[in-house]
Amino acid sequence: MSDARPIGVFDSGIGGLTVVKALRDLLPNENISYLGDTARVPYGPKSPETVQRYAVELAEMLMKEDAKALVVACNTVSSVALPELTKKFPVPVIGVIEPGARAALAASRNRRIGVIGTRATIRSGAYENALQAEDPSVHVISRACPLLVPLIEEGLLRDDLTEQIILRYLEPLLEDEIDTLVLGCTHYPLLTGAIAHVLRRQIMIVDSAQNCARAVEQMLDQEGLRAAPLNNGQLRVALTDAADNFLNVARDALQLHFGEIEIRALS
Amino acid sequence: MSDARPIGVFDSGIGGLTVVKALRDLLPNENISYLGDTARVPYGPKSPETVQRYAVELAEMLMKEDAKALVVACNTVSSVALPELTKKFPVPVIGVIEPGARAALAASRNRRIGVIGTRATIRSGAYENALQAEDPSVHVISRACPLLVPLIEEGLLRDDLTEQIILRYLEPLLEDEIDTLVLGCTHYPLLTGAIAHVLRRQIMIVDSAQNCARAVEQMLDQEGLRAAPLNNGQLRVALTDAADNFLNVARDALQLHFGEIEIRALS
Repeated sequence: MSDARPIGVFDSGIGGLTVVKALRDLLPNENISYLGDTARVPYGPKSPETVQRYAVELAEMLMKEDAKALVVACNTVSSVALPELTKKFPVPVIGVIEPGARAALAASRNRRIGVIGTRATIRSGAYENALQAEDPSVHVISRACPLLVPLIEEGLLRDDLTEQIILRYLEPLLEDEIDTLVLGCTHYPLLTGAIAHVLRRQIMIVDSAQNCARAVEQMLDQEGLRAAPLNNGQLRVALTDAADNFLNVARDALQLHFGEIEIRALS
Repeated sequence: MSDARPIGVFDSGIGGLTVVKALRDLLPNENISYLGDTARVPYGPKSPETVQRYAVELAEMLMKEDAKALVVACNTVSSVALPELTKKFPVPVIGVIEPGARAALAASRNRRIGVIGTRATIRSGAYENALQAEDPSVHVISRACPLLVPLIEEGLLRDDLTEQIILRYLEPLLEDEIDTLVLGCTHYPLLTGAIAHVLRRQIMIVDSAQNCARAVEQMLDQEGLRAAPLNNGQLRVALTDAADNFLNVARDALQLHFGEIEIRALS
């Protein structure tokens, strides 16, 4: 049995394409339908109620395309809307937080884990909660890094200024002797190189996009939802408003291939 | 005759409070009703059609409070929605672009004017058009500076990193020998100190918030819309979603006094 329906992936904008990239690498046979809410990006500063409402709208749009699973490629949405999405939709729903938290716990030796993300993700305490639910003894130090997304969107992926800003943000985490750093924002995998360069010493970088993709793979196997092994997976990208330059930055950096972007207006 | 109705000021978010500050300083008798669309900020990456639709919604909300004039304290909205707002509403509508452009032309000696703003404002060419409409011989060099807003919202108003980034952005403008720089984003007046420090030499900084306030003053006089001279002008601030830390940054830096924020949900 195989299931040709697409995996529906959504995000507040374009950052979730890092999750798409990880899914394409891991699951090349799967059809993927990506929906980025560029009309209302960013979700970070919005209230949980607003984010939940938007998430349900996006999920409904993907369900109309017969999605067999919903992947929430957005930390803000994952941190506030998973219970509601799981309740509302009859397909598996996978976020980015739990997979990232599990991978961090598997990687850490000294049980001191750093988490970086947007203000909203950090304020939600979602990673902290997910980490401590699995291991109450773990020490978590979190830091909101609101400048990283705009630096990425400017395309300053390898730049001295970017590295200075990363260092500024990471200093307190390093002083706190973390051995593992969770990239708690779907944009951040685009800075993996710069972050690794700043860290210099042996700190494990946990990329929640990659770990989310692994969780999706596992779920597809468990639920018997895999596409046919010979299927050449297609990627469709839709946005709720015209894309800016960051789409080019992401496409180039991730080497993602997709055709014309569909602009799908919100009702 | 005096007119106690409020001046309605709106912006995509909180940055427009720099215009409110300039209005308060210049017109302390006027009541001001400010509406910031924090639920949908930022407008910069959104399409002109979306920005126009949002602007009309915000203006309608202010008109329900009996606004005697509409001040568009947002460059993105000013660059794409003024004609539509002027057509739709029976009160004077004043944006930030034309006043800034006029002030720049009055300040420049060598007719070489720099403009910085968000990607959307620069892409719109609004300042360029406004400047060249008044003086076709003027040389305009524009630069989008997408990192400045997040730096301001982080509260890094005087910081070495901020100055490095400003310098990076301004270098090509300085090489082009501008003698006047227009701050084409309502956030930027919060960086006037840092920008002046980076520029070092004699370049006139034109703050479009202050020039917008002067244009409002002139319009009120022309239309006979001034509040009573003894009125103690009140400021009300409403937002479409809960404010983040930037509200505190702006309130402190601008020394603005207002009571509790009203959260007004969009329908």
